[in-house]
This record gives sequence, C-alpha cells and structure tokens, in this order.
Amino acid sequence: MLPFANISIIGLGLIGSSIAHAVRESMPSARITGFDADPAVRARVIELGFCDDVSDSAGAAVTDAGLVMLCVPVGVIADVAAELAVDLPDDAIISDVGSSKEIVLAALTDALPGARIIPAHPVAGTEHSGPDAGFATLFHERWCILTPPEDAAKADIEQVKAFWEKLGANVEIMGAKHHDLVLAVTSHLPHLIAYTIVGTASDLEDVTRSEVIKYSAGGFRDFTRIAASDPTMWRDVFLSNKEAVLEMLQRFSEDLTALQRAIRWDKGDELFDLFSKTRAIRRRIIEEGQDDAAPDFGRTHD
Amino acid sequence: MLPFANISIIGLGLIGSSIAHAVRESMPSARITGFDADPAVRARVIELGFCDDVSDSAGAAVTDAGLVMLCVPVGVIADVAAELAVDLPDDAIISDVGSSKEIVLAALTDALPGARIIPAHPVAGTEHSGPDAGFATLFHERWCILTPPEDAAKADIEQVKAFWEKLGANVEIMGAKHHDLVLAVTSHLPHLIAYTIVGTASDLEDVTRSEVIKYSAGGFRDFTRIAASDPTMWRDVFLSNKEAVLEMLQRFSEDLTALQRAIRWDKGDELFDLFSKTRAIRRRIIEEGQDDAAPDFGRTHD
Repeated sequence: MLPFANISIIGLGLIGSSIAHAVRESMPSARITGFDADPAVRARVIELGFCDDVSDSAGAAVTDAGLVMLCVPVGVIADVAAELAVDLPDDAIISDVGSSKEIVLAALTDALPGARIIPAHPVAGTEHSGPDAGFATLFHERWCILTPPEDAAKADIEQVKAFWEKLGANVEIMGAKHHDLVLAVTSHLPHLIAYTIVGTASDLEDVTRSEVIKYSAGGFRDFTRIAASDPTMWRDVFLSNKEAVLEMLQRFSEDLTALQRAIRWDKGDELFDLFSKTRAIRRRIIEEGQDDAAPDFGRTHD
Repeated sequence: MLPFANISIIGLGLIGSSIAHAVRESMPSARITGFDADPAVRARVIELGFCDDVSDSAGAAVTDAGLVMLCVPVGVIADVAAELAVDLPDDAIISDVGSSKEIVLAALTDALPGARIIPAHPVAGTEHSGPDAGFATLFHERWCILTPPEDAAKADIEQVKAFWEKLGANVEIMGAKHHDLVLAVTSHLPHLIAYTIVGTASDLEDVTRSEVIKYSAGGFRDFTRIAASDPTMWRDVFLSNKEAVLEMLQRFSEDLTALQRAIRWDKGDELFDLFSKTRAIRRRIIEEGQDDAAPDFGRTHD
C-alpha cells in the first residue's frame, strides 16, 4: 500500500529532486508530477528524467495530486500556494519542506482555507543546489519533523508520516513554534555564524585571500562548506524565523564577549572549562549516531 | 640521505605520535627517542611501540638528537626548553609544532641562547588527542609553515624543510608575526567561534540538550567536531596569540552585528549578497585542493 499514488513536487532543487529520486526508489509505482518556476530547471528535469511528467504551471502540476510537496524557498510559499489554490483537489494533502514552520503554517492556512495542511521539515541537505544535486538516500536515517496544525486529522498526519518513513527518514511531531526555536539553535545560528566568519575572512587586507584559502585546513574550511549553502533559501530562513534567530544570536554574542574577555585577561581556567564541556557534546552526538566518529569527518589524508 | 639520523620527540600526543609514525614509514632507519611528561602516556607509547626508545626525562631524550621536536602545548614550551637546555647537543636543531609562532620563537631564543632554532607549524590535525590518535599520513599534502628567526642558517632551514617533505608535507616559510595573523583567521577564530556556539547551545533552557543533539545534522554537528579539539592546546593558542585573535574577533563581531541588523530590518538583499560571496570562497577552496568536493564532506547517507 502506497501512502500516496500521485505526488506533485513544486520546486525541483536539491530537496525536491531528492524526494523524486527517493520516491522512484522506494515507491516505484507512484506517479510523480513536477513543476519549477524556472524554465531552465524544468528543461533539465525532463533530461534527467526523475519525474513522470513536468508541468508548465503550478496549477497544472497539482490537478491529480494526492500529496502536494512545496519544495520552494520559504519566502515564496504564500505566493506559490495562492497560485495553485484553484487547482488543488479537495482531498489532497498539502505539505512542504521549509526550515521555518510558524510562518509556513500561517501562510498555507491563509492561502488555502480548509485545505488538509501538514507542514514538514526534513533535517537533511548538502551545500549543493539545483536539480542535479538531488540523490535518493539524502533522507536515510535523518529526522523529518512534522508540525501539523492543532486541528489536523490524525489520519492525515499518519499518511505524511508513512510517506517520509518510506523515504528512509525518522519522523517526529512537534509544534511549529518549538520547532522554530530548536532549529534556530541547531541549524539557523550555525549557518549565520559560518556565513559571517567566511565573509570576515574574505574582507581582510593584511592577509591575502589566497593565504586564507591555502591554510584553510586549520579549521576555516569546515565553515566554508556550510557557508556555500543556497543563498536564496537561507536569506528566507533568517527573515522568516527572525524572532528566534535574533534571540539565539544575542545569547551567542554574550557568550562570545565573555570568551573575549577571558582571553584578554588571561583567564586560562575559564577557557579550559568551556573547551572541556564542548568536547563532551561531540561525544554524545557520535554516541547517538548523528555523526561519524572517524577523525576529521573521515576525510582521507592520502 | 636522511635529513636527521636521530630524532627526539618531546610530547607524544596526536602530533608527536603522528610524526613518529610518519618517520617510521618514510625514514625507517632513523632512530626515534620519545618523552612525555605524563608517565601513563610514556607507558602507552612503549606498548604501541612507535618509538625506538622512551626516556624518563626530557634531558635524557635529547642527548643524542640531531633534531629535537617539541610537540607540547605552547604554554609549556618555555619550561620544557629550560628543562632540556643543559642536555641539548650544540649541533642539534630544535623545532616545534605550535600554532602560535612569535611567542614560541621568543621563548626558545630566551631559554636556549645560541641554539639552532627553526620553529614550525604543520597545519594538520584532527579532533582526537593522545598517543593512540596519531597516524602516519596526517601530514600528507598538508602545509607545514616554518618561521625561522632572521639570523637562521640557510642550511638549517633546508634541513628541517627536507624533514617535513619526507613526511609528505608541503613547506612554506614566513615570518612569525605574519604567520600568527594568517592563522588567527584560518584557524584560531574558527575554533573560538565553534567553542562558543557549542557552549551557547548547551546552556539553553527552552530547548533540551537532547533536542540539540538529535537535530544537529542541520549544521550544528559540524561545529562540534572543531569544538572537540584538545582543550589544553587551544587554551594555550588563544592566550599565546592574544593580539591577533582579539583583532579578528573584533572584526567578526562587527560583521555579525551588521548581519543581525540586516535580519532585524528585513534587508534581504544584503543577506543574499553576502551568502553569494561566501559560496564563491568555498569553490576556490575546492579548486585549490584544500577540501573535497563531495557533498556534506562525503559523509555517507546509508
């Protein structure tokens, strides 16, 4: 039994194309209809062949859908929902993959009154973008968080849960507001910090940019991976989860100032205590299977 | 022809033990004498067998040495140098692997007047520590920066350069002050930021620590790797390169404040421009072979 026989994917970048690949692999009899606002992306997806059909409009892509997945930047969710509203079948479930959930839930509820809305956030991705970047195993053993509205039908939640489990994900359910706070810490703040530090390094005068690149193995290069993530997606994430991001940023800045002060006044013990505590967190991440224990992310040294 | 027939390694943690393994592999006829201030480490090194001899004091370890490598935290370099001063052969070259070079050069010059001092910094490492963490290929295709004093003999520089090249490293030579500035950006600041954000996340009340760990794949877990680096080593790095670190931290804080302001006032274009610029830096790091192009550091998704 398939959770959905007809799946419509709106937005065919890294996440949309990965969903298509994963559906092909785990639910080969399901029919996938795709749409992307960019004609060049649509043409490329036809070449790559991971959709059964590529439509010329969002509306045309959803007419037969049992599940509509919006895989577009959070900032355009409201517009895309409005665009397909008249064509959305009454019994279709509409979901998304956005990284901020309060704003998405509000936008969908507003644009599609009465629709069966089950927002989702697969906590998975890479620094690459576009329809060529997708792959079927992206969601394997990763978390997918559903943030259904309070009045959502239990059966609808179960159906979307079953869909993500078929793609290999582990599903959790939580409120949109709490989701936004948790992700502000575990994802949004790290991205913001990485973007900042890579920007700071590239603006120096006394150190040439080629020196920064040459000696990046000392730590900097790890940050450049995250800071290579999709600019449009991340602009929208920060603007759409503003309150939680600014709150976390404030806490981070206070902690950084305390550390700055410890360095200035030679408080070695304070530094040592913090550095020992953070090492313990890494150990727990490894123990709970959220990362590999291989040194240096298992990068080869040959 | 070996650069050195007798090599003494003082400090047998990740770097010291990796040097020993690499010497064994690339210069099997060279004799390695090791010492570590911790008796438990000495006992473990005897078990592991990567030194020809393990001495009971720093002085005893250097009596026959052609090259003495100090692989200890920067904060104890002066004490260790003083400890072995009377036993250091006149014709031995003394070097180190510390991450801050101005302070090391001053400490060695002070403790060992007239000695042949060639400080070095291999830009390589992992988040693991101790004699079990070392491996022979750690320095392969990594940079090793030599920061010799102005009056160093050219032949001495060449000899240490040849040694590191045998271990697989690419050698660069620069002034200690410039080294400290470059590394403050490419290594010290990233570590400081990573330690801070991991600390910030672990101090939250509204989000439980287990949620932080559970959803860390969204970006946070990359920071935990760096923040798992050796606490003693990094405490000493920040205190010994204080001026450059504080200067870089100040610039970073200004940039972060600007980004915070852009989020607060919905300046999406400013965010987008920065995020596009940082993506280009990642591309150059990949192009110049300083990191792998595989998405997500090549982590497996199965």
